[in-house]
Amino acid sequence: MATILVHVMPKPEILDPQGKAVGAALPRLGFDGVAQVRQGKRFELTVDGEVTDEVLAKVRQAAETLLSNPVIEDVVEVTVAQESA
Amino acid sequence: MATILVHVMPKPEILDPQGKAVGAALPRLGFDGVAQVRQGKRFELTVDGEVTDEVLAKVRQAAETLLSNPVIEDVVEVTVAQESA
Repeated sequence: MATILVHVMPKPEILDPQGKAVGAALPRLGFDGVAQVRQGKRFELTVDGEVTDEVLAKVRQAAETLLSNPVIEDVVEVTVAQESA
Repeated sequence: MATILVHVMPKPEILDPQGKAVGAALPRLGFDGVAQVRQGKRFELTVDGEVTDEVLAKVRQAAETLLSNPVIEDVVEVTVAQESA
């Protein structure tokens, strides 16, 4: 079994209300120096067997069709997770 | 300006309905071989100035108090993003 990480973020030009809300709250809680916060999604997909280029391509396709909304989001990363020791 | 990435995932023992829903949909859309899907959050924090250990510690503290719910979520990663070329 292997784990593939998929990271999805809102497109830069898209308004990110969640990120804005978090960004506004940080100074109120004493965390200064953070100019901007953007919030996206992280998926961990556990796949059977070995991760071949074909499997990665299939996962990227699933990421672009099911795990993200291509109109407002970008798939920024599809990588194989390092096995934790 | 630098960007710090914060990754938050549901605790392993916690039910992850969103992940389950995505995991169930994948085979219906022709993506087989995915045993499990877990969905979490990814934050990109743009910070002023240099990222020192103290800044990273402050961001980790903000992650554990504001960006995640420590009862049901774990902060799995706090890293400085590579500057994109």
